[in-house]
Amino acid sequence: MTEKIKVVIAGARGKMGKEAVKLVQNTPHFEMVGAIDHKHDGKRLSQLDEFTGLDVLIYGNLDHCFNDTKPDVLIDLTVPETGYMHAKTALLNHVRPVVGTTGFSEEQLVEIKELAEERNIGAIIAPNFAIGAILMMKFSQMAAKYFDDVEIIEMHHDQKLDAPSGTGLKTAQMIAQQRMPKHQGHLNEKETIQGARGADVDGMKIHSVRLPGLVAHQQVMFGGEGQMFTIRHDSFDRTSFMSGVQVCVETIMKIDTLVYGLENILD
Amino acid sequence: MTEKIKVVIAGARGKMGKEAVKLVQNTPHFEMVGAIDHKHDGKRLSQLDEFTGLDVLIYGNLDHCFNDTKPDVLIDLTVPETGYMHAKTALLNHVRPVVGTTGFSEEQLVEIKELAEERNIGAIIAPNFAIGAILMMKFSQMAAKYFDDVEIIEMHHDQKLDAPSGTGLKTAQMIAQQRMPKHQGHLNEKETIQGARGADVDGMKIHSVRLPGLVAHQQVMFGGEGQMFTIRHDSFDRTSFMSGVQVCVETIMKIDTLVYGLENILD
Amino acid sequence: MTEKIKVVIAGARGKMGKEAVKLVQNTPHFEMVGAIDHKHDGKRLSQLDEFTGLDVLIYGNLDHCFNDTKPDVLIDLTVPETGYMHAKTALLNHVRPVVGTTGFSEEQLVEIKELAEERNIGAIIAPNFAIGAILMMKFSQMAAKYFDDVEIIEMHHDQKLDAPSGTGLKTAQMIAQQRMPKHQGHLNEKETIQGARGADVDGMKIHSVRLPGLVAHQQVMFGGEGQMFTIRHDSFDRTSFMSGVQVCVETIMKIDTLVYGLENILD
Amino acid sequence: MTEKIKVVIAGARGKMGKEAVKLVQNTPHFEMVGAIDHKHDGKRLSQLDEFTGLDVLIYGNLDHCFNDTKPDVLIDLTVPETGYMHAKTALLNHVRPVVGTTGFSEEQLVEIKELAEERNIGAIIAPNFAIGAILMMKFSQMAAKYFDDVEIIEMHHDQKLDAPSGTGLKTAQMIAQQRMPKHQGHLNEKETIQGARGADVDGMKIHSVRLPGLVAHQQVMFGGEGQMFTIRHDSFDRTSFMSGVQVCVETIMKIDTLVYGLENILD
Repeated sequence: MTEKIKVVIAGARGKMGKEAVKLVQNTPHFEMVGAIDHKHDGKRLSQLDEFTGLDVLIYGNLDHCFNDTKPDVLIDLTVPETGYMHAKTALLNHVRPVVGTTGFSEEQLVEIKELAEERNIGAIIAPNFAIGAILMMKFSQMAAKYFDDVEIIEMHHDQKLDAPSGTGLKTAQMIAQQRMPKHQGHLNEKETIQGARGADVDGMKIHSVRLPGLVAHQQVMFGGEGQMFTIRHDSFDRTSFMSGVQVCVETIMKIDTLVYGLENILD
Repeated sequence: MTEKIKVVIAGARGKMGKEAVKLVQNTPHFEMVGAIDHKHDGKRLSQLDEFTGLDVLIYGNLDHCFNDTKPDVLIDLTVPETGYMHAKTALLNHVRPVVGTTGFSEEQLVEIKELAEERNIGAIIAPNFAIGAILMMKFSQMAAKYFDDVEIIEMHHDQKLDAPSGTGLKTAQMIAQQRMPKHQGHLNEKETIQGARGADVDGMKIHSVRLPGLVAHQQVMFGGEGQMFTIRHDSFDRTSFMSGVQVCVETIMKIDTLVYGLENILD
Repeated sequence: MTEKIKVVIAGARGKMGKEAVKLVQNTPHFEMVGAIDHKHDGKRLSQLDEFTGLDVLIYGNLDHCFNDTKPDVLIDLTVPETGYMHAKTALLNHVRPVVGTTGFSEEQLVEIKELAEERNIGAIIAPNFAIGAILMMKFSQMAAKYFDDVEIIEMHHDQKLDAPSGTGLKTAQMIAQQRMPKHQGHLNEKETIQGARGADVDGMKIHSVRLPGLVAHQQVMFGGEGQMFTIRHDSFDRTSFMSGVQVCVETIMKIDTLVYGLENILD
Repeated sequence: MTEKIKVVIAGARGKMGKEAVKLVQNTPHFEMVGAIDHKHDGKRLSQLDEFTGLDVLIYGNLDHCFNDTKPDVLIDLTVPETGYMHAKTALLNHVRPVVGTTGFSEEQLVEIKELAEERNIGAIIAPNFAIGAILMMKFSQMAAKYFDDVEIIEMHHDQKLDAPSGTGLKTAQMIAQQRMPKHQGHLNEKETIQGARGADVDGMKIHSVRLPGLVAHQQVMFGGEGQMFTIRHDSFDRTSFMSGVQVCVETIMKIDTLVYGLENILD
């Protein structure tokens, strides 16, 4: 029988963190052995409202935690400033970090990579854990090799401030790496009302829909002679991120360097 | 047994006209009794390449045609300038005109209406015969009573010149008659790339997708607390117009005035 | 200035009830004046965990509540057995009941109707408050007049036990009232794997998709020569019911009989 | 400057063949040097109605054609029985066959493979040239690695005899190679009307929609915690096959063995 993967979670009280705790509990080959939380050092998770019945010790200090619990993996769902420090401390303790925050500098990435490679263990930094969103971007890039024309419709709730969305923009950029720039639509095309044709990214168009009730949805539409090819992702709530975290925890046990971005794990 | 409705078709050689000929042939309670075509006066349709086997006489002169064939209905699929003259001549001959062209002036509409009512017979002018498109607009207007927020995505082949499409714009205008103007999206919403949020019509947004392979598609999306309501029409080819022509021919026998727009026939 | 509509809520602690409390609080022309709850007679809502700050008295007895608070409307979101008794008691106290439960017998409906009409006040019983779902059914029935061929795809989470869904079935039944029965598909159509063509209702087909992650979604697809017409409703969470409750509370003030089913209020 | 790829087409008068002729004419680096047609040996394509202006000689005999025109590639769009003979004869003449027919036996495939490899030239047999459909199957197989639950909805015109479609079935089979068999839906799920849950393939469900107006459409829906991932292909007319033929003609010049199935060319 395979041994369980021993996991420590930092940021367990956050929205994502709570889901991660559930994930680890519900995955038979995962085991939660500790939590990192500066506010509740020395308590047990079961003493906090949200985690009734979870008999896991909380540490304010990472080194103590790693020393006591000998985990395989640290899942870090804190904030950008903390993510880097936690990843570094984990590697120094021979613990593999799965970090879900953004904002790493080039230098920090190089440092993390070297620390991982020196110890022959894995490290993963993944700004987006939604496997469906990652597959959408990856497959869109692949499809762009065969279809020159593509438009992106991203749809979000109407409280979102920026348009287009980060995922919409990143999808277009990944496609742009693959295809030759092409101005789409008729050469003499005319907007009788400004904005009808959407935002232009390298000749591609992105359309941003904002409606109450929506969560986070995107469809990438490729058109070719006599056909349309569409890839769509619907995110209904943040539990959608958890399958990505699971893949990371499983993958990190098999690699011996830093991987940046979930798209470089999925094959 | 009910008698067949006797139909004369003007513009039979055009794209729409050919489909109308097929429609009349394939509808058991319709009968084609004549064709109007200034180029082929005196010939039979069967002598033209496209209409093998159709033993119907072609007239250059409408009065002669109506006198000889005593039709119930004239289906006119010609051009704007001709449509008005044909409708008038038909009514003067007690023939009900179903006209598929645009461009009638207010005066002309009044005149056609009076001619129809004086004779107690029907007249229909329908710029768009696609029942699905008409229902989409009609239902969108009805739904707008219950949903304040709506965005329209219209999708066409990439040889289309104008954006947004006429149907997209008309849909928005029909919705605007129903709902209170509302600026949709977050008040502080920001386009990081211009055009992302689409064309603004009375606070609503229209997004125009143009891709090779597409034909004519539109979806109207309403968002509300926890839900989305969508109405969509896909037109794959021009045969989609024919069910509308059929409804017009059947309806015109039961009315005694002018109806402008298919939306005023469908209930 | 218009006076506020005074509302009492029964079932406030349930999932739907909590949303109704929020709705009444957030609607400027509504005012919550009391709650019905046999377990917490005499307390205030603010004393219960979920309703911090809501200074509303809880009654175990309806007559006392109505006598004290003189409400215009009772919103009842309890269980079938209780719904009937609450509706009756409300009407006897000249309070208009909006009841969201099912299971009324024919006799009970007749009784409620008579009680309402005797007092010239409204009563509404609505088994489904999701306006989008109601519009989908209503528009589908209307569209069936123009399209003979229709298939329904209903999609739910994979913990749903029955297939097809109640809404799917009801949609088909409403369409069946409108169209002539027609066996759809090719006469010699053959299922090489049983079930491929879905469930047959009066010649129409219903397909039930069950996938984890989904909530409650349905699309009704009409096909005709060269075109497709689609109506779709996505319910993402139970807040989608609240706009229906709001319409009911507003409508009930203007009617003087029983209305059964939200579809008979929407126009 | 690169030389043009010289192409001979067999089956030019068929529906697919006519499109292939257009493709070769419209592709600057392709050149049509001959046609194979037993009925019109010795004529020129320009003498046939459909190919006005195409000054290309028609041969009844393949060897003569290959000897005279020295083509690089034979595009064969005939019928299964003929496809094998044409492929073999082409290879014996050092001409690369792109064959669009099905029905090759295992022995025939081995023979074609050996003939190609002995001559160090390519051969391609592709039962389906629609790139979008191939990508849909390929990506679905890839996505199945990350999503256990998947349902397929395939939609075709109502004159289609078999359900599910060949593409629907093949998609399920390709997914089955990747995922562990899983019975989807609730264990106690119950069909109140038989067929609601569709056709079962290895625990996956396929739903077949048949409506007039539709052409050929399929969507593959993956569900996971809090999310849905969808891949969809719409084929509007047979021109959708031509980009696949083009990729084959271009690829066959660079390979030196038999490739069976377009999915093994696309990367």
